[in-house]
Amino acid sequence: MKSTHPASEVQHATDLYPSRISDTPSITERRDPVVYSAWSPNCSITEEQSEFYRRNGYLFIESFFSPSEVQGLKEELKRMWAASRDSADGEVIREPDSDEVRSIFNVHRSSDVFKALSGHSRLKSITDYILGSETYIHQSRINFKPGFTGKEFYWHSDFETWHVEDGMPRMRALSCSIALEDNYHFNGPLMVVPGSQMDYVSCVGRTPDNHYEKSLRRQQYGVPDHDSLAELVQRYGIDTPVGKAGSIVLFDCNIMHGSNSNITPMPRSNVFIVYNSVENKLQPPYSGQPPRPEFIAARED
Amino acid sequence: MKSTHPASEVQHATDLYPSRISDTPSITERRDPVVYSAWSPNCSITEEQSEFYRRNGYLFIESFFSPSEVQGLKEELKRMWAASRDSADGEVIREPDSDEVRSIFNVHRSSDVFKALSGHSRLKSITDYILGSETYIHQSRINFKPGFTGKEFYWHSDFETWHVEDGMPRMRALSCSIALEDNYHFNGPLMVVPGSQMDYVSCVGRTPDNHYEKSLRRQQYGVPDHDSLAELVQRYGIDTPVGKAGSIVLFDCNIMHGSNSNITPMPRSNVFIVYNSVENKLQPPYSGQPPRPEFIAARED
Repeated sequence: MKSTHPASEVQHATDLYPSRISDTPSITERRDPVVYSAWSPNCSITEEQSEFYRRNGYLFIESFFSPSEVQGLKEELKRMWAASRDSADGEVIREPDSDEVRSIFNVHRSSDVFKALSGHSRLKSITDYILGSETYIHQSRINFKPGFTGKEFYWHSDFETWHVEDGMPRMRALSCSIALEDNYHFNGPLMVVPGSQMDYVSCVGRTPDNHYEKSLRRQQYGVPDHDSLAELVQRYGIDTPVGKAGSIVLFDCNIMHGSNSNITPMPRSNVFIVYNSVENKLQPPYSGQPPRPEFIAARED
Repeated sequence: MKSTHPASEVQHATDLYPSRISDTPSITERRDPVVYSAWSPNCSITEEQSEFYRRNGYLFIESFFSPSEVQGLKEELKRMWAASRDSADGEVIREPDSDEVRSIFNVHRSSDVFKALSGHSRLKSITDYILGSETYIHQSRINFKPGFTGKEFYWHSDFETWHVEDGMPRMRALSCSIALEDNYHFNGPLMVVPGSQMDYVSCVGRTPDNHYEKSLRRQQYGVPDHDSLAELVQRYGIDTPVGKAGSIVLFDCNIMHGSNSNITPMPRSNVFIVYNSVENKLQPPYSGQPPRPEFIAARED
């Protein structure tokens, strides 16, 4: 019988991080470093910052970008938002219960401003240090969580999805979230489980075909179970790194994170840039299914 | 033509706080005191606490109840929760998108434990002081916001609903929320707009008949508009009084409040008791519609 998934014929010799295969969830140990370089005084972060990242899986840096830099990014976001309102483009993702735009992907290719941002030299020197090699942009997006009606993003490990659906072999990638508005603890900020980057939560259920078309609006597969989440939070607690516009959060690809809804009038908008090591380039998806589109998971340079 | 609402034949001489009448929202000034008594050294709260309440419309008191008192209340809540799981009783309110129990009303009548709680002498001496008279229980309920799936409560002034739907004439009532679990800023705590008790936000739209059957699950009328909410938050900001189990928040009937969703594993459960001045007893509803049931708005002693 002929497979409907050409990609499924590609066999992976070993899958260090199997998920969506078993009927029961499990938590296993990380098999990769978190910080890939040895610290030295010429690093662009301090030894304390490096150690904080290694232990907690994230690093918050206040005022990384200046107010005028933030202003430039906000104007570009506003421009792109207006342009995408009536767009049928797949890169424009809408809220699950309305046509409000929730995210625009691939902005490091479609916008000169965000392209320049993704090559920001101090940022790149930090990501190259943490990932221990040259890096490239695996994914970029701008997120807009409106006031009054902003919906939650449920808990997830990015790596679980990038591994299963995109074929990212190892945990050697990180996200940089840039706050374009002041963040408060009450307007649905990013919540992370500090330390959870050391645990890999295997999820249950097979991934349906073309899952990404729905999952970017509302995730249904690759969702960690309640018991595993309760266990992680019991072990490590929850942090909510918040600060002024221009602050950044760098976080490991496997840290468990999510955010609550936002009924306050204060909107939240962020730029996300995902850096992956050039030594960790994408393979065929571990699910055996066809790869997701280029705008979600870059395979070309 | 005969009215279908006998209550609508009762005319109110004056309505100081009209709402759901005009097509455009408005913000008008409060016409009543916030603290009805003059402070003296034998009051059960300090002068600073009294002044804080007057200015901000709420007061947070840490460790008002002891751990063993909290334990007793939690056990009773658990017992009532289990008993109500399959109940068709109107006092049991479920989540908008599931059959999970969200609130149980009228617990000061149906439970000896909560009956005793509502008569707690120090609590009553505070409420009598603030409201400047004897008080009675206008409403009581236990709320349970589960972990992982707890939904938001959108912004509202209790008084707006109690006035329009229940016929409460003046702003002379307050709620006491008792935390039965530790509250964090990330598990959907109560958010208040401190100072907003001084502003009355008139809402648009006429109230449908039997609105309460739906509104207790998901509010659709008596909802303040975005511009008014943005204006209030601009003026006053947002506070999230959180603390250990056993802490209480007393808040004015007209303060604007709400809460975000809760995707964390930490559930939240609270007891709410609403005290109203005996000099502020309910009249026919200002909407002209029939009164809501006794378990939501007490008319009998």
